[in-house]
Amino acid sequence: MSKKQKMVEAITPRDEDFTRWYTDICMRAELCSYSTVRGCVILRPYGYAIWELITGELDRRFKKTGHENVMMPLFIPESLLQKEKDHVEGFAPEVAWVTHGGDEELTERLCVRPTSETLFCDHYAEVIESWRDLPKLYNQWVSVVRWEKTTRPFLRTREFFWQEGHTAHATKEEAMEETLMILNLYEEFYQTALAIPVLSGEKSESEKFAGAVNTYTIEAMMHDGKALQAGTSHYFGNGFAKAFNIQYADRDNRLQYVHQTSWGVSSRSIGGIIMVHGDDDGLVLPPAVAPIQIVIIPIAQHKEGVLDEACRLKEAVKEAGFRVKLDDSDRMPGWKFAEYEMKGVPIRLELGPRDIAQGSCVVVTRDNREKTVVQLENIIEELPGMLNDLNKRMFENANKRLTSRIYDVSDWNEFVQTMDEKPGFIRAPWCKDPDCEAKVKDITKATSRLIEGAADKSHSCIVCNRPALQMVIWGRAY
Amino acid sequence: MSKKQKMVEAITPRDEDFTRWYTDICMRAELCSYSTVRGCVILRPYGYAIWELITGELDRRFKKTGHENVMMPLFIPESLLQKEKDHVEGFAPEVAWVTHGGDEELTERLCVRPTSETLFCDHYAEVIESWRDLPKLYNQWVSVVRWEKTTRPFLRTREFFWQEGHTAHATKEEAMEETLMILNLYEEFYQTALAIPVLSGEKSESEKFAGAVNTYTIEAMMHDGKALQAGTSHYFGNGFAKAFNIQYADRDNRLQYVHQTSWGVSSRSIGGIIMVHGDDDGLVLPPAVAPIQIVIIPIAQHKEGVLDEACRLKEAVKEAGFRVKLDDSDRMPGWKFAEYEMKGVPIRLELGPRDIAQGSCVVVTRDNREKTVVQLENIIEELPGMLNDLNKRMFENANKRLTSRIYDVSDWNEFVQTMDEKPGFIRAPWCKDPDCEAKVKDITKATSRLIEGAADKSHSCIVCNRPALQMVIWGRAY
Repeated sequence: MSKKQKMVEAITPRDEDFTRWYTDICMRAELCSYSTVRGCVILRPYGYAIWELITGELDRRFKKTGHENVMMPLFIPESLLQKEKDHVEGFAPEVAWVTHGGDEELTERLCVRPTSETLFCDHYAEVIESWRDLPKLYNQWVSVVRWEKTTRPFLRTREFFWQEGHTAHATKEEAMEETLMILNLYEEFYQTALAIPVLSGEKSESEKFAGAVNTYTIEAMMHDGKALQAGTSHYFGNGFAKAFNIQYADRDNRLQYVHQTSWGVSSRSIGGIIMVHGDDDGLVLPPAVAPIQIVIIPIAQHKEGVLDEACRLKEAVKEAGFRVKLDDSDRMPGWKFAEYEMKGVPIRLELGPRDIAQGSCVVVTRDNREKTVVQLENIIEELPGMLNDLNKRMFENANKRLTSRIYDVSDWNEFVQTMDEKPGFIRAPWCKDPDCEAKVKDITKATSRLIEGAADKSHSCIVCNRPALQMVIWGRAY
Repeated sequence: MSKKQKMVEAITPRDEDFTRWYTDICMRAELCSYSTVRGCVILRPYGYAIWELITGELDRRFKKTGHENVMMPLFIPESLLQKEKDHVEGFAPEVAWVTHGGDEELTERLCVRPTSETLFCDHYAEVIESWRDLPKLYNQWVSVVRWEKTTRPFLRTREFFWQEGHTAHATKEEAMEETLMILNLYEEFYQTALAIPVLSGEKSESEKFAGAVNTYTIEAMMHDGKALQAGTSHYFGNGFAKAFNIQYADRDNRLQYVHQTSWGVSSRSIGGIIMVHGDDDGLVLPPAVAPIQIVIIPIAQHKEGVLDEACRLKEAVKEAGFRVKLDDSDRMPGWKFAEYEMKGVPIRLELGPRDIAQGSCVVVTRDNREKTVVQLENIIEELPGMLNDLNKRMFENANKRLTSRIYDVSDWNEFVQTMDEKPGFIRAPWCKDPDCEAKVKDITKATSRLIEGAADKSHSCIVCNRPALQMVIWGRAY
């Protein structure tokens, strides 16, 4: 089967089989490819370009808020991983172990980092001496490894890509402020750059990060109604500081433990983009992370003047600062339309002899397929507004789906039935007893996604009917 | 010992102990730090910022020449590594092996990538079908692992950072053109962005990359006269293509093997910057990769108006597009001078009450310590020229050291004596017999760095006196 046939062949319809639709998009849009390394995928140029744009957007925000990038080793000695009790219990079962270097067996096993709290703590213990050294606001862009049993591109792979921020502060207040500042930064990034609405709040005890005092999360709703944990920000208190002896001399020269945070967003975000915005023709990309923002397709390109005019248009669009591609290959326009729709390119410009004669071009926006005729002399000034409008529509449509699919439920039978029949989240009160939370999970496969706040006094727990303490958003999750 | 004492304390003089001087700079300039993971170092914010600028400079050049970034898995199954015979022999003895995932022993060991030819080939075999798919011009920015016995920051660490380009072409000619284009790109990058002169040429058979048909190299000369292999570009022929069955249908629909290349520059380049440009006061950074290009030090900053004027200056310099820092901390100016000299900041601006009264500031260039008084109203337009001149001086000084320390030698005894007594390279003829090359290495610890070209008919081999075939640059290397 030739590549051309593969491309024009329709993908599985989204409503017919969401999982296959998702995988079809990953493969047909050439985001990634399976590798012979079980559980690991290859990020192909188009998929990696999206990740580069995501990292660029986030990195700019991190630097603007005073963070610095560093690079910790890939490996963690077993003894170091074991220093913080909760942390090792959380991660040891799912790490990859290096036991040999060349022909020699190592005296101590090394794990491939599943996350780098222990390495940062070890380093902080060495470089932090006084209050003058605080805060430390470090971040790193790396891949991490967790030995998952199942594989789904971008969502669950043994190796995945992320940033992990690790900060150390003089006081609890400062650390908590950082934790929440980053949560807001993530929320703003998702809503602005990815056009993905999110809910934000704290995780329950059982859903917390291993070793954290508080874990905050942003949660997005996918097109099938399931939740994607889109980013987390953790407040550690001084638990790690005590385990790793990270102390500083304060202004009165007394030794104090630092207060720490960590936070991360990963390449799952690409999975989120697919599952929030994608449709039956493929990917739909928000302009900020679209490797090609505008594609120009010449019509009847063999006719005199068409390619020249298309080239001029391309140069003008590029000059104006957009990521633009002119496809002057010898394939049919219809084939090209399908390809760039599959790849989610936000705007397509069609330019043929008739358009040129009229001094105009046809603009097609990917999200709603609307066609507009725009005069060539106005196109450069029209594009920013068109991309903005598209981004806004993408966000608003996703937000409508999100808000209209959060169901307020106060009765257990209704909870079970709703979770089974209505894709989406449920808002329901909870008594804070982990047993009730576990029962929800056992019976409905839904987990507590985040705590919205305190429950009203009149509320009773959705599971046990005892007085409720918190209002919780529940959902099945990726 | 406080940090302040550590900072003002002198580093080991370069001519007294080059190795200690080098390590002192790495630590005192806070480029990196040893970690508890043996053989691995931590890149601290300042060191990582230099690496980010290097990657930015190179990545821009790669993209401009049509390359795309991708990401291959971190692991390579043992059977995949073994597919190309020379390649596995070259790398298997020095890889780290993952044998367990969680509690389970793996059915097949995975090595942590020492380089990714095998993964790229495996992928190319899958995605290349016809001549339309060629060339594939892929690159990735990753860390790789080789189980080295010794550790020297940036020069020899078990994990190091690099880019690896891997390309596939329809013909031998195109692949060779790519190999040499990249060699030139590397040379231009080193000479322009890093102000480091390099020699370029082909490697001998014994110094070739494992699996390559031809290996080309750029070699820089460190301040102690030793060589640093600064980048390599390999032509693979179709050896890997045959081992991995990477075939394409040509325009006549006949199956052909692709011709491949690979090429890389690593974080060793930071070691090169230190050892080419550094002096007894610390690092000297070329402007293109200096995280801080201009530092502003207020003098008598408690006096009215000084900090205000310094802030205004900083904003103006930043606005003009330079990376600038104003150090308004409460430390003494002399301490700050020493710190930013240690960190190699190219230009220091001093601004005190007297300067302000005269509407000027003092400009000090890091490489030659020259002080110039410049009117504040002219400073923004003067800075680009000053940075350019500094970069030019750095290159020219390094180039003088390089060219004046290449010794033409035609007698074996003189060769041995020169290699022992005169730091630098030797240009000497060679018969191409690997035994002669091995003898040079055994006796003098020098290796053939590169082949300059064919030898003159009158030349005889420096070792065996038989007729020489090639003119070779020899040197001891890092």
